[in-house]
Amino acid sequence: MYLEAGLLTRRSVRQFEKGHKIAENDMKDILKIAMYAPSACNKQPWEFVVIEDEAMKNKIAEIHPYAQFVKDASAAIVVCGNEQEQCDNGFWIVDTSAAIENLLLALHGKGMGGCWCAIYPYAERMKAFQNLLGLPEHVKPNALIVAGYPIKQPTQPQDRFREDKIHYERW
Amino acid sequence: MYLEAGLLTRRSVRQFEKGHKIAENDMKDILKIAMYAPSACNKQPWEFVVIEDEAMKNKIAEIHPYAQFVKDASAAIVVCGNEQEQCDNGFWIVDTSAAIENLLLALHGKGMGGCWCAIYPYAERMKAFQNLLGLPEHVKPNALIVAGYPIKQPTQPQDRFREDKIHYERW
Repeated sequence: MYLEAGLLTRRSVRQFEKGHKIAENDMKDILKIAMYAPSACNKQPWEFVVIEDEAMKNKIAEIHPYAQFVKDASAAIVVCGNEQEQCDNGFWIVDTSAAIENLLLALHGKGMGGCWCAIYPYAERMKAFQNLLGLPEHVKPNALIVAGYPIKQPTQPQDRFREDKIHYERW
Repeated sequence: MYLEAGLLTRRSVRQFEKGHKIAENDMKDILKIAMYAPSACNKQPWEFVVIEDEAMKNKIAEIHPYAQFVKDASAAIVVCGNEQEQCDNGFWIVDTSAAIENLLLALHGKGMGGCWCAIYPYAERMKAFQNLLGLPEHVKPNALIVAGYPIKQPTQPQDRFREDKIHYERW
């Protein structure tokens, strides 16, 4: 798949082939690509928690209100920012968001798919994931990425080009 | 260029062919691809200010401390989040960061390049861009993307894969 086509055809996937495990080398490729995102001062302040255990996936479904489908997915990847490794206060959310987009594109490129389920900016949800995963206080969960093999290939997204979102020279 | 290769070879570009304008249709393609990023509730709360005017580029170089090279670039694209269009408070920074990564990848796919120059999280810098561009109070600048044709193709990034950033099942 070509880069531009990949960027235009990536979609959120929420229905997965149950029991289809992501091969270890594929998972490493996907996480590697996430790590090739840009970051402020090239600090790469991300951390990834990969969850494949059934009991853990069920617990995630309990603490995230919009991620019931994680139970049938191959993996849950919680992408976190390490506040002690960021360039300056506030960059972890920016840097990890770019890494998540890379991760979703990497899944798409391998014929898999994923859904970005927000943890940030909800303080209560962040705390629940910190507790479940045993994250230190300085490691903040940005999002839960539910990943796996789509039951069917998603259709093309509707045209999202919006001329009115482009401003020339100034507002 | 294939998707995976594109994701692994994108680098920041800071030296540009002076005077090499980005064709209008290429600019629209790039912004379209940025608009195909995922966003919370699919709200797409982004706004793009495209600056090509020399006087405006010089003013940007005055208010951003690390973007002198914008003077020689083809364009400056200020990617903003519209607080009135986001899914919930706090999502604009997440959504626009994903859109910026798409935008940088789109530049790379077209043989161009760009550099992500932070505006957020610096309140003073955000205010300076809001004033310069006449942004309404609810439109927050995330970053300045300096874009153009690289003088030379950037070298491969150093290996960024970090096994120690991956945690299995829990921290």
